Amino acid sequence: MSSDLVMAALRAFVEERDWAQFHSLSNLARSISIEAAELLECFQWSDDAEQERVEAELADVLTYCLLLADRLHVDPDAIVLAKLEQTKRKYPVKSARGKSTKYDQLPD
Amino acid sequence: MSSDLVMAALRAFVEERDWAQFHSLSNLARSISIEAAELLECFQWSDDAEQERVEAELADVLTYCLLLADRLHVDPDAIVLAKLEQTKRKYPVKSARGKSTKYDQLPD
Amino acid sequence: MSSDLVMAALRAFVEERDWAQFHSLSNLARSISIEAAELLECFQWSDDAEQERVEAELADVLTYCLLLADRLHVDPDAIVLAKLEQTKRKYPVKSARGKSTKYDQLPD
Amino acid sequence: MSSDLVMAALRAFVEERDWAQFHSLSNLARSISIEAAELLECFQWSDDAEQERVEAELADVLTYCLLLADRLHVDPDAIVLAKLEQTKRKYPVKSARGKSTKYDQLPD
Repeated sequence: MSSDLVMAALRAFVEERDWAQFHSLSNLARSISIEAAELLECFQWSDDAEQERVEAELADVLTYCLLLADRLHVDPDAIVLAKLEQTKRKYPVKSARGKSTKYDQLPD
Repeated sequence: MSSDLVMAALRAFVEERDWAQFHSLSNLARSISIEAAELLECFQWSDDAEQERVEAELADVLTYCLLLADRLHVDPDAIVLAKLEQTKRKYPVKSARGKSTKYDQLPD
Repeated sequence: MSSDLVMAALRAFVEERDWAQFHSLSNLARSISIEAAELLECFQWSDDAEQERVEAELADVLTYCLLLADRLHVDPDAIVLAKLEQTKRKYPVKSARGKSTKYDQLPD
Repeated sequence: MSSDLVMAALRAFVEERDWAQFHSLSNLARSISIEAAELLECFQWSDDAEQERVEAELADVLTYCLLLADRLHVDPDAIVLAKLEQTKRKYPVKSARGKSTKYDQLPD
Protein backbone atom coordinates (compact mmCIF):
# COMPACT_ATOMS: atom_id res chain seq x y z
CA MET A 1 0.00 0.00 0.00
CA SER A 2 1.16 3.46 -0.76
CA SER A 3 1.26 6.20 1.88
CA ASP A 4 0.04 8.60 -0.79
CA LEU A 5 -3.27 6.77 -0.83
CA VAL A 6 -3.48 7.02 2.97
CA MET A 7 -2.64 10.70 2.90
CA ALA A 8 -5.27 11.30 0.22
CA ALA A 9 -7.89 9.44 2.27
CA LEU A 10 -7.06 11.48 5.39
CA ARG A 11 -7.18 14.75 3.47
CA ALA A 12 -10.58 13.91 1.98
CA PHE A 13 -11.88 12.96 5.44
CA VAL A 14 -10.76 16.30 6.89
CA GLU A 15 -11.99 18.34 3.95
CA GLU A 16 -15.46 16.80 3.92
CA ARG A 17 -15.85 17.78 7.56
CA ASP A 18 -14.23 21.22 7.16
CA TRP A 19 -11.87 20.37 10.01
CA ALA A 20 -8.64 21.93 8.70
CA GLN A 21 -9.60 25.03 10.71
CA PHE A 22 -8.95 23.05 13.93
CA HIS A 23 -5.68 21.51 12.76
CA SER A 24 -3.12 24.09 13.78
CA LEU A 25 0.36 22.71 14.44
CA SER A 26 -0.14 23.22 18.18
CA ASN A 27 -3.54 21.49 18.24
CA LEU A 28 -2.19 18.53 16.27
CA ALA A 29 0.76 18.22 18.65
CA ARG A 30 -1.68 18.20 21.59
CA SER A 31 -3.76 15.56 19.79
CA ILE A 32 -0.73 13.32 19.31
CA SER A 33 0.02 13.47 23.07
CA ILE A 34 -3.61 12.77 23.92
CA GLU A 35 -3.80 9.75 21.62
CA ALA A 36 -0.38 8.50 22.77
CA ALA A 37 -1.76 8.44 26.31
CA GLU A 38 -4.78 6.42 25.19
CA LEU A 39 -2.33 3.93 23.72
CA LEU A 40 -0.41 3.92 27.01
CA GLU A 41 -3.69 3.28 28.83
CA CYS A 42 -3.76 -0.19 27.23
CA PHE A 43 -0.73 -0.88 29.45
CA GLN A 44 -1.79 1.10 32.55
CA TRP A 45 -2.00 -1.81 34.97
CA SER A 46 -0.26 -4.58 33.05
CA ASP A 47 2.35 -5.06 30.36
CA ASP A 48 -0.10 -7.27 28.51
CA ALA A 49 -2.80 -5.77 26.36
CA GLU A 50 -5.36 -6.83 23.81
CA GLN A 51 -3.80 -6.66 20.32
CA GLU A 52 -6.92 -5.24 18.67
CA ARG A 53 -7.18 -2.38 21.17
CA VAL A 54 -3.46 -1.54 20.83
CA GLU A 55 -3.78 -1.46 17.03
CA ALA A 56 -6.74 0.91 17.18
CA GLU A 57 -4.98 3.32 19.54
CA LEU A 58 -1.73 3.19 17.57
CA ALA A 59 -3.76 4.01 14.44
CA ASP A 60 -5.03 7.18 16.15
CA VAL A 61 -1.51 8.32 17.03
CA LEU A 62 -0.33 7.62 13.48
CA THR A 63 -3.30 9.46 11.98
CA TYR A 64 -2.48 12.68 13.81
CA CYS A 65 1.22 12.24 13.00
CA LEU A 66 0.37 12.02 9.30
CA LEU A 67 -1.90 15.08 9.52
CA LEU A 68 0.88 17.02 11.25
CA ALA A 69 3.45 15.94 8.63
CA ASP A 70 1.02 17.10 5.95
CA ARG A 71 0.63 20.50 7.64
CA LEU A 72 4.42 20.77 7.82
CA HIS A 73 4.66 19.83 4.11
CA VAL A 74 7.09 17.03 4.89
CA ASP A 75 7.14 13.39 3.89
CA PRO A 76 6.81 11.14 6.99
CA ASP A 77 9.27 8.57 5.63
CA ALA A 78 11.81 11.25 4.76
CA ILE A 79 11.86 12.77 8.25
CA VAL A 80 12.09 9.34 9.87
CA LEU A 81 15.11 8.44 7.72
CA ALA A 82 16.77 11.84 8.27
CA LYS A 83 16.38 11.48 12.04
CA LEU A 84 17.64 7.90 11.91
CA GLU A 85 20.93 9.15 10.47
CA GLN A 86 21.30 11.51 13.44
CA THR A 87 20.37 8.82 15.94
CA LYS A 88 22.92 6.43 14.43
CA ARG A 89 25.63 8.98 15.18
CA LYS A 90 24.37 9.52 18.75
CA TYR A 91 24.30 5.76 19.39
CA PRO A 92 27.36 4.17 17.76
CA VAL A 93 27.05 0.39 17.55
CA LYS A 94 30.30 -0.04 19.44
CA SER A 95 29.26 1.76 22.62
CA ALA A 96 25.45 1.37 22.50
CA ARG A 97 25.12 -2.32 21.61
CA GLY A 98 22.93 -4.23 24.09
CA LYS A 99 22.40 -1.21 26.35
CA SER A 100 19.39 1.06 26.97
CA THR A 101 21.65 3.83 28.25
CA LYS A 102 20.84 7.37 27.05
CA TYR A 103 23.37 8.75 24.58
CA ASP A 104 24.69 11.44 26.93
CA GLN A 105 25.67 8.75 29.41
CA LEU A 106 27.35 6.38 26.96
CA PRO A 107 31.12 5.86 27.17
CA ASP A 108 33.08 7.53 24.36
CA MET B 1 9.70 6.48 -1.09
CA SER B 2 8.43 3.16 0.12
CA SER B 3 7.63 2.50 3.76
CA ASP B 4 9.17 -0.94 3.34
CA LEU B 5 12.53 0.75 2.91
CA VAL B 6 11.98 2.78 6.08
CA MET B 7 10.93 -0.30 8.02
CA ALA B 8 14.00 -2.18 6.76
CA ALA B 9 16.27 0.70 7.82
CA LEU B 10 14.71 0.81 11.29
CA ARG B 11 14.99 -2.96 11.72
CA ALA B 12 18.66 -2.91 10.73
CA PHE B 13 19.32 -0.05 13.16
CA VAL B 14 17.71 -1.98 16.03
CA GLU B 15 19.35 -5.27 15.15
CA GLU B 16 22.87 -3.81 14.90
CA ARG B 17 22.46 -2.45 18.43
CA ASP B 18 20.73 -5.59 19.81
CA TRP B 19 17.92 -3.40 21.08
CA ALA B 20 14.91 -5.63 20.30
CA GLN B 21 15.24 -6.91 23.88
CA PHE B 22 14.10 -3.47 25.13
CA HIS B 23 11.23 -3.12 22.67
CA SER B 24 8.36 -4.81 24.46
CA LEU B 25 4.92 -3.52 23.48
CA SER B 26 4.61 -1.73 26.82
CA ASN B 27 8.05 -0.07 26.54
CA LEU B 28 7.31 1.09 22.99
CA ALA B 29 3.97 2.53 24.10
CA ARG B 30 5.78 4.43 26.89
CA SER B 31 8.34 5.66 24.36
CA ILE B 32 5.61 7.00 22.08
CA SER B 33 4.13 9.00 24.98
CA ILE B 34 7.55 10.31 25.95
CA GLU B 35 8.39 11.44 22.43
CA ALA B 36 4.89 12.89 21.93
CA ALA B 37 5.54 15.09 24.96
CA GLU B 38 8.86 16.27 23.50
CA LEU B 39 6.90 17.27 20.40
CA LEU B 40 4.38 19.06 22.61
CA GLU B 41 7.27 20.84 24.33
CA CYS B 42 7.89 22.74 21.06
CA PHE B 43 4.52 24.40 21.81
CA GLN B 44 4.81 24.65 25.62
CA TRP B 45 4.73 28.45 25.87
CA SER B 46 3.59 29.45 22.42
CA ASP B 47 1.58 28.11 19.48
CA ASP B 48 4.50 29.00 17.23
CA ALA B 49 7.47 26.70 16.94
CA GLU B 50 10.54 26.25 14.82
CA GLN B 51 9.71 23.98 11.87
CA GLU B 52 13.00 22.07 12.01
CA ARG B 53 12.57 21.21 15.69
CA VAL B 54 8.95 20.10 15.18
CA GLU B 55 10.00 17.85 12.29
CA ALA B 56 12.71 16.20 14.38
CA GLU B 57 10.37 15.51 17.29
CA LEU B 58 7.60 14.26 15.01
CA ALA B 59 10.15 11.91 13.42
CA ASP B 60 10.84 10.41 16.87
CA VAL B 61 7.15 9.77 17.53
CA LEU B 62 6.75 8.20 14.07
CA THR B 63 9.83 6.03 14.57
CA TYR B 64 8.47 4.43 17.73
CA CYS B 65 5.03 4.07 16.09
CA LEU B 66 6.61 2.15 13.21
CA LEU B 67 8.59 -0.04 15.61
CA LEU B 68 5.40 -0.80 17.55
CA ALA B 69 3.48 -1.61 14.35
CA ASP B 70 6.31 -3.95 13.40
CA ARG B 71 6.14 -5.72 16.78
CA LEU B 72 2.38 -6.07 16.33
CA HIS B 73 2.93 -7.47 12.80
CA VAL B 74 0.59 -4.91 11.30
CA ASP B 75 0.98 -2.55 8.38
CA PRO B 76 0.82 1.09 9.58
CA ASP B 77 -1.13 2.22 6.52
CA ALA B 78 -3.62 -0.62 6.89
CA ILE B 79 -4.47 0.18 10.52
CA VAL B 80 -4.80 3.90 9.76
CA LEU B 81 -7.25 3.17 6.94
CA ALA B 82 -9.21 0.64 9.01
CA LYS B 83 -9.54 3.15 11.84
CA LEU B 84 -10.53 5.90 9.41
CA GLU B 85 -13.54 3.85 8.36
CA GLN B 86 -14.66 3.63 11.99
CA THR B 87 -14.07 7.33 12.57
CA LYS B 88 -16.09 8.24 9.49
CA ARG B 89 -19.05 6.42 11.03
CA LYS B 90 -18.57 8.14 14.40
CA TYR B 91 -18.38 11.55 12.75
CA PRO B 92 -20.95 11.70 9.92
CA VAL B 93 -20.34 14.67 7.62
CA LYS B 94 -23.86 15.92 8.19
CA SER B 95 -23.60 16.38 11.96
CA ALA B 96 -19.83 16.86 12.39
CA ARG B 97 -19.08 19.34 9.61
CA GLY B 98 -17.32 22.46 10.89
CA LYS B 99 -17.44 21.39 14.54
CA SER B 100 -14.78 20.10 16.94
CA THR B 101 -17.43 18.45 19.12
CA LYS B 102 -16.64 14.94 20.40
CA TYR B 103 -18.72 12.22 18.75
CA ASP B 104 -20.64 11.33 21.90
CA GLN B 105 -21.92 14.90 22.09
CA LEU B 106 -22.90 15.28 18.44
CA PRO B 107 -26.61 15.60 17.58
CA ASP B 108 -28.09 12.50 15.95
CA MET C 1 4.33 21.55 56.40
CA SER C 2 1.49 23.64 55.15
CA SER C 3 0.54 23.77 51.48
CA ASP C 4 -0.08 27.49 51.94
CA LEU C 5 3.64 27.95 52.45
CA VAL C 6 4.38 25.99 49.28
CA MET C 7 1.83 27.97 47.31
CA ALA C 8 3.32 31.23 48.60
CA ALA C 9 6.83 30.11 47.62
CA LEU C 10 5.66 29.17 44.11
CA ARG C 11 3.80 32.46 43.68
CA ALA C 12 6.87 34.47 44.75
CA PHE C 13 9.06 32.46 42.35
CA VAL C 14 6.71 33.19 39.43
CA GLU C 15 6.24 36.84 40.34
CA GLU C 16 9.95 37.59 40.69
CA ARG C 17 10.44 36.25 37.14
CA ASP C 18 7.30 37.90 35.71
CA TRP C 19 6.21 34.52 34.39
CA ALA C 20 2.46 34.70 35.09
CA GLN C 21 2.11 35.97 31.50
CA PHE C 22 3.10 32.50 30.23
CA HIS C 23 0.86 30.58 32.65
CA SER C 24 -2.42 30.39 30.76
CA LEU C 25 -4.60 27.40 31.67
CA SER C 26 -3.76 25.77 28.34
CA ASN C 27 0.00 26.30 28.70
CA LEU C 28 -0.05 24.91 32.25
CA ALA C 29 -1.99 21.85 31.08
CA ARG C 30 0.62 21.30 28.35
CA SER C 31 3.38 21.68 30.94
CA ILE C 32 1.80 19.04 33.17
CA SER C 33 1.75 16.57 30.25
CA ILE C 34 5.35 17.40 29.36
CA GLU C 35 6.58 16.90 32.91
CA ALA C 36 4.49 13.75 33.34
CA ALA C 37 6.32 12.30 30.34
CA GLU C 38 9.69 13.15 31.89
CA LEU C 39 8.56 11.22 34.96
CA LEU C 40 7.51 8.34 32.69
CA GLU C 41 10.94 8.47 31.05
CA CYS C 42 12.43 7.22 34.35
CA PHE C 43 10.58 3.97 33.54
CA GLN C 44 11.06 3.95 29.74
CA TRP C 45 13.10 0.77 29.51
CA SER C 46 12.64 -0.74 32.96
CA ASP C 47 10.16 -0.76 35.83
CA ASP C 48 13.03 0.11 38.15
CA ALA C 49 14.20 3.67 38.49
CA GLU C 50 16.45 5.74 40.67
CA GLN C 51 14.43 7.14 43.60
CA GLU C 52 16.10 10.56 43.52
CA ARG C 53 15.35 11.06 39.83
CA VAL C 54 11.72 9.96 40.24
CA GLU C 55 11.27 12.40 43.14
CA ALA C 56 12.66 15.30 41.10
CA GLU C 57 10.39 14.59 38.13
CA LEU C 58 7.34 14.06 40.34
CA ALA C 59 8.12 17.42 41.96
CA ASP C 60 7.93 19.09 38.53
CA VAL C 61 4.52 17.56 37.77
CA LEU C 62 3.24 18.62 41.21
CA THR C 63 4.60 22.15 40.77
CA TYR C 64 2.64 22.74 37.56
CA CYS C 65 -0.44 21.10 39.12
CA LEU C 66 -0.26 23.56 42.03
CA LEU C 67 0.21 26.50 39.66
CA LEU C 68 -2.82 25.37 37.63
CA ALA C 69 -4.93 24.95 40.79
CA ASP C 70 -3.90 28.46 41.78
CA ARG C 71 -4.94 29.86 38.39
CA LEU C 72 -8.28 28.06 38.75
CA HIS C 73 -8.68 29.50 42.28
CA VAL C 74 -9.23 26.06 43.73
CA ASP C 75 -7.67 24.30 46.69
CA PRO C 76 -5.75 21.19 45.51
CA ASP C 77 -6.81 19.14 48.54
CA ALA C 78 -10.45 20.11 48.08
CA ILE C 79 -10.63 19.02 44.45
CA VAL C 80 -8.84 15.73 45.22
CA LEU C 81 -11.35 14.95 47.97
CA ALA C 82 -14.34 15.98 45.83
CA LYS C 83 -13.16 13.73 43.01
CA LEU C 84 -12.50 10.88 45.44
CA GLU C 85 -16.17 10.90 46.41
CA GLN C 86 -17.15 10.48 42.76
CA THR C 87 -14.58 7.75 42.21
CA LYS C 88 -15.85 5.84 45.25
CA ARG C 89 -19.28 5.71 43.64
CA LYS C 90 -17.83 4.57 40.29
CA TYR C 91 -15.82 1.82 41.96
CA PRO C 92 -17.94 0.25 44.73
CA VAL C 93 -15.83 -1.90 47.08
CA LYS C 94 -18.06 -4.90 46.43
CA SER C 95 -17.49 -5.09 42.67
CA ALA C 96 -14.07 -3.39 42.32
CA ARG C 97 -12.13 -5.06 45.13
CA GLY C 98 -8.89 -6.66 43.92
CA LYS C 99 -9.52 -5.81 40.26
CA SER C 100 -7.96 -3.25 37.91
CA THR C 101 -11.03 -3.33 35.66
CA LYS C 102 -12.29 0.04 34.38
CA TYR C 103 -15.58 1.12 35.96
CA ASP C 104 -17.59 0.82 32.75
CA GLN C 105 -16.66 -2.85 32.55
CA LEU C 106 -17.35 -3.74 36.18
CA PRO C 107 -20.28 -6.07 36.96
CA ASP C 108 -23.28 -4.34 38.56
CA MET D 1 -7.35 21.52 55.10
CA SER D 2 -4.42 19.32 55.89
CA SER D 3 -2.76 17.14 53.27
CA ASP D 4 -2.47 14.43 55.92
CA LEU D 5 -6.24 14.11 55.85
CA VAL D 6 -6.20 13.81 52.06
CA MET D 7 -3.44 11.22 52.17
CA ALA D 8 -5.36 9.24 54.80
CA ALA D 9 -8.52 9.34 52.67
CA LEU D 10 -6.62 8.13 49.59
CA ARG D 11 -4.95 5.33 51.54
CA ALA D 12 -8.27 4.14 52.93
CA PHE D 13 -9.80 4.22 49.44
CA VAL D 14 -6.97 2.09 48.04
CA GLU D 15 -6.92 -0.32 50.96
CA GLU D 16 -10.67 -0.97 50.93
CA ARG D 17 -10.37 -1.98 47.25
CA ASP D 18 -7.12 -3.94 47.71
CA TRP D 19 -5.56 -1.89 44.92
CA ALA D 20 -2.04 -1.39 46.31
CA GLN D 21 -1.07 -4.48 44.30
CA PHE D 22 -1.55 -2.46 41.08
CA HIS D 23 0.29 0.64 42.32
CA SER D 24 3.88 -0.08 41.37
CA LEU D 25 6.01 3.02 40.79
CA SER D 26 5.97 2.34 37.06
CA ASN D 27 2.19 1.88 36.89
CA LEU D 28 1.61 5.07 38.89
CA ALA D 29 3.95 7.00 36.57
CA ARG D 30 1.97 5.68 33.57
CA SER D 31 -1.27 6.69 35.29
CA ILE D 32 0.00 10.24 35.82
CA SER D 33 0.80 10.56 32.10
CA ILE D 34 -2.60 9.13 31.16
CA GLU D 35 -4.49 11.52 33.42
CA ALA D 36 -2.31 14.46 32.34
CA ALA D 37 -3.42 13.78 28.77
CA GLU D 38 -7.08 13.75 29.81
CA LEU D 39 -6.45 17.18 31.32
CA LEU D 40 -4.79 18.27 28.08
CA GLU D 41 -7.82 16.99 26.18
CA CYS D 42 -9.86 19.83 27.75
CA PHE D 43 -7.68 22.11 25.60
CA GLN D 44 -7.38 19.89 22.48
CA TRP D 45 -9.13 22.21 20.04
CA SER D 46 -9.27 25.46 21.99
CA ASP D 47 -7.42 27.31 24.73
CA ASP D 48 -10.74 27.76 26.50
CA ALA D 49 -12.19 24.99 28.59
CA GLU D 50 -14.96 24.44 31.07
CA GLN D 51 -13.66 25.14 34.60
CA GLU D 52 -15.50 22.21 36.19
CA ARG D 53 -14.05 19.70 33.72
CA VAL D 54 -10.52 21.07 34.14
CA GLU D 55 -10.81 20.81 37.94
CA ALA D 56 -11.95 17.19 37.73
CA GLU D 57 -9.09 16.18 35.42
CA LEU D 58 -6.52 18.08 37.48
CA ALA D 59 -7.81 16.26 40.55
CA ASP D 60 -7.07 12.92 38.86
CA VAL D 61 -3.49 13.94 38.06
CA LEU D 62 -2.97 15.16 41.64
CA THR D 63 -4.45 11.97 43.07
CA TYR D 64 -1.93 9.75 41.29
CA CYS D 65 0.87 12.17 42.17
CA LEU D 66 -0.04 11.86 45.86
CA LEU D 67 -0.22 8.07 45.60
CA LEU D 68 3.21 8.00 43.96
CA ALA D 69 4.68 10.32 46.62
CA ASP D 70 3.26 7.98 49.26
CA ARG D 71 4.86 4.94 47.59
CA LEU D 72 8.16 6.83 47.50
CA HIS D 73 7.75 7.73 51.20
CA VAL D 74 8.23 11.41 50.46
CA ASP D 75 6.22 14.46 51.44
CA PRO D 76 4.78 16.16 48.31
CA ASP D 77 5.34 19.65 49.72
CA ALA D 78 8.93 18.84 50.66
CA ILE D 79 9.90 17.63 47.19
CA VAL D 80 8.22 20.63 45.54
CA LEU D 81 10.18 23.03 47.75
CA ALA D 82 13.45 21.15 47.26
CA LYS D 83 13.01 21.24 43.48
CA LEU D 84 12.07 24.93 43.62
CA GLU D 85 15.47 25.71 45.13
CA GLN D 86 17.16 23.98 42.20
CA THR D 87 14.94 25.72 39.66
CA LYS D 88 15.69 29.11 41.21
CA ARG D 89 19.37 28.51 40.54
CA LYS D 90 18.71 27.37 36.95
CA TYR D 91 16.57 30.45 36.26
CA PRO D 92 18.20 33.47 37.96
CA VAL D 93 15.83 36.45 38.14
CA LYS D 94 18.32 38.64 36.32
CA SER D 95 18.53 36.56 33.13
CA ALA D 96 15.16 34.78 33.17
CA ARG D 97 12.80 37.64 34.02
CA GLY D 98 9.98 38.03 31.49
CA LYS D 99 11.26 35.24 29.23
CA SER D 100 10.04 31.70 28.56
CA THR D 101 13.50 30.65 27.34
CA LYS D 102 14.76 27.25 28.54
CA TYR D 103 17.59 27.51 31.08
CA ASP D 104 20.23 26.03 28.77
CA GLN D 105 19.59 28.83 26.30
CA LEU D 106 19.62 31.71 28.77
CA PRO D 107 22.45 34.24 28.62
CA ASP D 108 24.98 33.92 31.46
